[in-house]
Amino acid sequence: MAPIATSDVSSHFQTTQGSGDLIPLGEYIFRRISQVGTKSIFGVPGDFNLNFLEHIYSVKGLNWIGCCNELNAGYAADGYAKLSLGKLMGVVVTTFGVGELSAINAISGSFAEYAPVLHIVGTSSMGQKQGPKNFHHLVTNKKLFAAPNHYVYENMVDDICIAKESIKELDQACEQVDRVLEAVYAKSRPGYLYLPSNYADMMVSLERLTKTPLRLALSPAANPQQVSDLAEQILGRMYDAERPAVLADILVSKFRSNETFNKLVEKLSTNVRLFSTTMSKGVVDESLPNWFGTYCGVQSCEGVARFMEECDFVLHAGIFDVETNNGSYTFNLNKVQVVELHPEYIAIGDQIYEGENMMQHVLEAMCKKLDVSQMQANTLPEPLLRKASSTTSKSLNQAYLVDALEAYLQPNDILVVETCSFLFAIADFKFKHNMTFVSQMFYGSIGYALPATLGCSLALRDMNQETSRRVVLIQGDGSAQMTIQELATYVRQDIKPTMFLLNNDGYSVERIIYGPNSSYNDIAPNWKWCEFFKVFGDINGDVAFTTKVSQKDDLDQLLNEKKFRSGLQLQLVELMLDRMDVPWRFELICGKQTSK
Amino acid sequence: MAPIATSDVSSHFQTTQGSGDLIPLGEYIFRRISQVGTKSIFGVPGDFNLNFLEHIYSVKGLNWIGCCNELNAGYAADGYAKLSLGKLMGVVVTTFGVGELSAINAISGSFAEYAPVLHIVGTSSMGQKQGPKNFHHLVTNKKLFAAPNHYVYENMVDDICIAKESIKELDQACEQVDRVLEAVYAKSRPGYLYLPSNYADMMVSLERLTKTPLRLALSPAANPQQVSDLAEQILGRMYDAERPAVLADILVSKFRSNETFNKLVEKLSTNVRLFSTTMSKGVVDESLPNWFGTYCGVQSCEGVARFMEECDFVLHAGIFDVETNNGSYTFNLNKVQVVELHPEYIAIGDQIYEGENMMQHVLEAMCKKLDVSQMQANTLPEPLLRKASSTTSKSLNQAYLVDALEAYLQPNDILVVETCSFLFAIADFKFKHNMTFVSQMFYGSIGYALPATLGCSLALRDMNQETSRRVVLIQGDGSAQMTIQELATYVRQDIKPTMFLLNNDGYSVERIIYGPNSSYNDIAPNWKWCEFFKVFGDINGDVAFTTKVSQKDDLDQLLNEKKFRSGLQLQLVELMLDRMDVPWRFELICGKQTSK
Ligand SMILES: Cc1ncc(C[n+]2csc(CCOP(=O)(O)OP(=O)(O)O)c2C)c(N)n1
Ligand SMILES: Cc1ncc(C[n+]2csc(CCOP(=O)(O)OP(=O)(O)O)c2C)c(N)n1
Repeated sequence: MAPIATSDVSSHFQTTQGSGDLIPLGEYIFRRISQVGTKSIFGVPGDFNLNFLEHIYSVKGLNWIGCCNELNAGYAADGYAKLSLGKLMGVVVTTFGVGELSAINAISGSFAEYAPVLHIVGTSSMGQKQGPKNFHHLVTNKKLFAAPNHYVYENMVDDICIAKESIKELDQACEQVDRVLEAVYAKSRPGYLYLPSNYADMMVSLERLTKTPLRLALSPAANPQQVSDLAEQILGRMYDAERPAVLADILVSKFRSNETFNKLVEKLSTNVRLFSTTMSKGVVDESLPNWFGTYCGVQSCEGVARFMEECDFVLHAGIFDVETNNGSYTFNLNKVQVVELHPEYIAIGDQIYEGENMMQHVLEAMCKKLDVSQMQANTLPEPLLRKASSTTSKSLNQAYLVDALEAYLQPNDILVVETCSFLFAIADFKFKHNMTFVSQMFYGSIGYALPATLGCSLALRDMNQETSRRVVLIQGDGSAQMTIQELATYVRQDIKPTMFLLNNDGYSVERIIYGPNSSYNDIAPNWKWCEFFKVFGDINGDVAFTTKVSQKDDLDQLLNEKKFRSGLQLQLVELMLDRMDVPWRFELICGKQTSK
Repeated sequence: MAPIATSDVSSHFQTTQGSGDLIPLGEYIFRRISQVGTKSIFGVPGDFNLNFLEHIYSVKGLNWIGCCNELNAGYAADGYAKLSLGKLMGVVVTTFGVGELSAINAISGSFAEYAPVLHIVGTSSMGQKQGPKNFHHLVTNKKLFAAPNHYVYENMVDDICIAKESIKELDQACEQVDRVLEAVYAKSRPGYLYLPSNYADMMVSLERLTKTPLRLALSPAANPQQVSDLAEQILGRMYDAERPAVLADILVSKFRSNETFNKLVEKLSTNVRLFSTTMSKGVVDESLPNWFGTYCGVQSCEGVARFMEECDFVLHAGIFDVETNNGSYTFNLNKVQVVELHPEYIAIGDQIYEGENMMQHVLEAMCKKLDVSQMQANTLPEPLLRKASSTTSKSLNQAYLVDALEAYLQPNDILVVETCSFLFAIADFKFKHNMTFVSQMFYGSIGYALPATLGCSLALRDMNQETSRRVVLIQGDGSAQMTIQELATYVRQDIKPTMFLLNNDGYSVERIIYGPNSSYNDIAPNWKWCEFFKVFGDINGDVAFTTKVSQKDDLDQLLNEKKFRSGLQLQLVELMLDRMDVPWRFELICGKQTSK
């Protein structure tokens, strides 16, 4: 909008530009981001962030990924961070008020689900902040005649971010930038950096960039002796157990403990039963012979719950204790000795030991100390996993989709799943080696997955894995309507996910819960899903392959086509499904079916 | 998502349903909304609002307008309220967390621009709120082991709403509902109603609905004598003036003072010069012979500023003193006697008189007391309005568009304009009789106008003016990308606006401000604007008429076609424009041109 934002830049601009020792603050910020490893920056420009954005071109390796709107940009940044398992920070840049509030729901989701996302907001200049004038994008003060509060939006986010830095003095700015970056990285949750528009071009010390490296490394244990004791105590209990289990949970990957954790799992005797939780698919290698399934309390497949609940010891690593991950609070492990590893505490029975990075430190110690020979020798039962669906109809249904897609998925695939009814089937999948699962199962904001897939694909590109790993998106029609325009950025950025669009004519999740035939559960009808890429930039129709499938046979054939399987092109498959057809687990949760 | 939300409904459900004296609270809310006059309810369902939504079907005359996402629904509700000049309240319904935060930017805009919008959020049940469990949509507590705060989102909105009611006890609920509705209506700003999901089906007294009417009528003046004195004092000054003027400003229409104000204007001697402000277009009848143009300080057309600033008295009615309405604080009225009428105060010179509804009360008193014979007789100069553009090129440009669209617009038209570069040309238009202007010029969140047009069109329908008034939308391409999917709701709801899509290949507003060739000012390219209705529901292509125009002649021809002019069908005209072509006023604001 009106360009007042940049009006007091020039007066503050210091003429030292070009001097070897100084760089503009905007460039400093981008260089720091680059040091974290991030290469793609998502967002939308606005007059309060333009002069900041300009500095992106000074930093080699950084790419601006303009999105269609800010919510989508926030979701994309979240997907970027999640796919990299917290290694690449997601960064989203928006403008004062209108932009930052448009993205707030994405940030809240990143907070709920531990995605390290930095939200940089270009705000009004310090000159504007000090005056009484009412500027565009800024709500007026409720109090008559009072000056507007330029911090009104900054005040909203305290409970949905882990760190917040609002730049007010140039000589504090670099420290603030570093602090929020370090906090976001360490806590794997979003942080806010508020940058008044007059600051982006002001000069700061270059030296700090090289002389004061960001502290991204894990801080050493505060109490190494305690860590060592805990590791021994936990191992001791595991050695004693007759039927030990490891429940791999999602905070393992949120806090970059995957590697250590999986090293431990590999070393363990193969008579330890391995389980995933609903949200932690892919954290532990489910292709291992001792993987026993996805444990989700009463929502588990029958055999899975039985084999879990008869164990006498469970190492629950990376516990994330929320409704959508604990079978709506139905874990039945009262009779089992459970040890919980959480990034910030270890719980052994009733004893709780708090500490920063406790999970990682204890996992490392356990790795070192593990002596497999001390474990009980026991032969494992045969895991009881899901049986293939047995419906006879020729037309597609969700049960059949589980079979077909499970078979279609390959090692190293990225699987992104929207919060649609099919999400409740993912617990039934057996993941192949090194698959990564991205969803927003706990926060559950629909529309997330489509832009998040953009972020995932670009993170892969930035990690040089673009050609070696496929990105597969499973998407509901109602959810897709929320954020459909970001398909244009798929084309623009030349990414190549394969998208399965489940067309079941509305919000089936809601239909099952309430009002199956009520109009509020209908969506805008008659969308031509297969034509969207053409209107969104694929003008000649040669970028994307799209097709519509309603029969099982046709799906089988498609999924076996070599070109389709290769995932080397952008593709969309519209799958025709019945309105009231949902996974058994979702019916169970809604009280419409009994356990399987 | 998971249906936990409704799980403790049945236990609380009172068996008195069906009794003549009780109705469900959900129905009570909808009936109250209906009493305000609102007929269209915008939103998106979610498990925390489903059982509330179901009650909409019990209230005759209410329609559920499902939108593609919540931000769009919020914008639509805002457009609905704005078009009706505050008479019809906008209502948007969303779900806990994910939905309400998606819409928060729209609500902030409604607050900034005085649109009476009620945001009803279905939240977690009271049973859930009292427990320690972590539910979907709700961020966990930052503090380790602490229960989640179910009010975390409610705490965010204090500075962007005028009233907030969070239902906690059934016996307070109806009063709370009434209170927030009354406040939103009286203050013409948004209010929040938080409805825990267990309450919608609980029974409340039916009697209140009829026995305790909502207080929507204007409260009488607190001090009638003062109002009377003020009216006389103001009129006295006007009688004394040699060159009196009335500056019609936007808060006149935001507080339903249009009628009284225009009655006063009609009664005034025609030697009073009438002016509009940038944001108040359409408030005063610009087709009157004594309309002198749009006053916006140094951003005015030359003759307009001169004729305003040489006045010796200005009645500034409905003052809204913000950058985008006062020519970036360049009103030059220091030598003029200015009387300001504001909904909450009257200012005469340095004297300020505060009071509720002051503007309306004083306007009414002025209407009664006005004695035109006491005004000075003076002949008015000829107003100096904008001259037609004189560029000779055959291809379209924005200057030419002003001429062409000004001529195209008819009395009674609704003109919706997005915050794109062309918005800065609207001050140059001379509005025809009874035109209504809808924009978001102060808050300036792009993407607003497209869904707001949905709201405008439905408000017209609900006021039985659908066939007698055209809705014309002027939209930028970058802005349209933000919320494009709501075109599907145009088709679904069978509305018939005419949309001019200004295709200038990116964010021209930003290009002029900074980085004309920087990639952050590019948008996703190659959208097929003319094909969108076909993918969004107009499957046979017979609902919408679309065409692309790049030559002046072609535009002239189109605008003169009878069928096109009738506005009886949904239509989209893609106008091809140059990247750096913007209205002169915008260049001026950006310091790239001198005054016109
Ligand atoms: C932003 C947001 N709005 C509303 C909801 C409520 N909601 C959850 S699932 C769902 C329906 C999703 O529909 P679709 O993607 O078609 O999947 P289906 O239910 O048909 O499998 C809705 C509306 C939500 N979770 N997030
Ligand atoms: C939600 C939001 N995001 C970003 C901005 C910053 N902004 C203001 S105008 C504009 C460009 C609008 O582009 P377009 O609609 O194509 O109109 P043009 O500038 O080309 O006339 C942008 C990005 C904003 N005002 N609101």
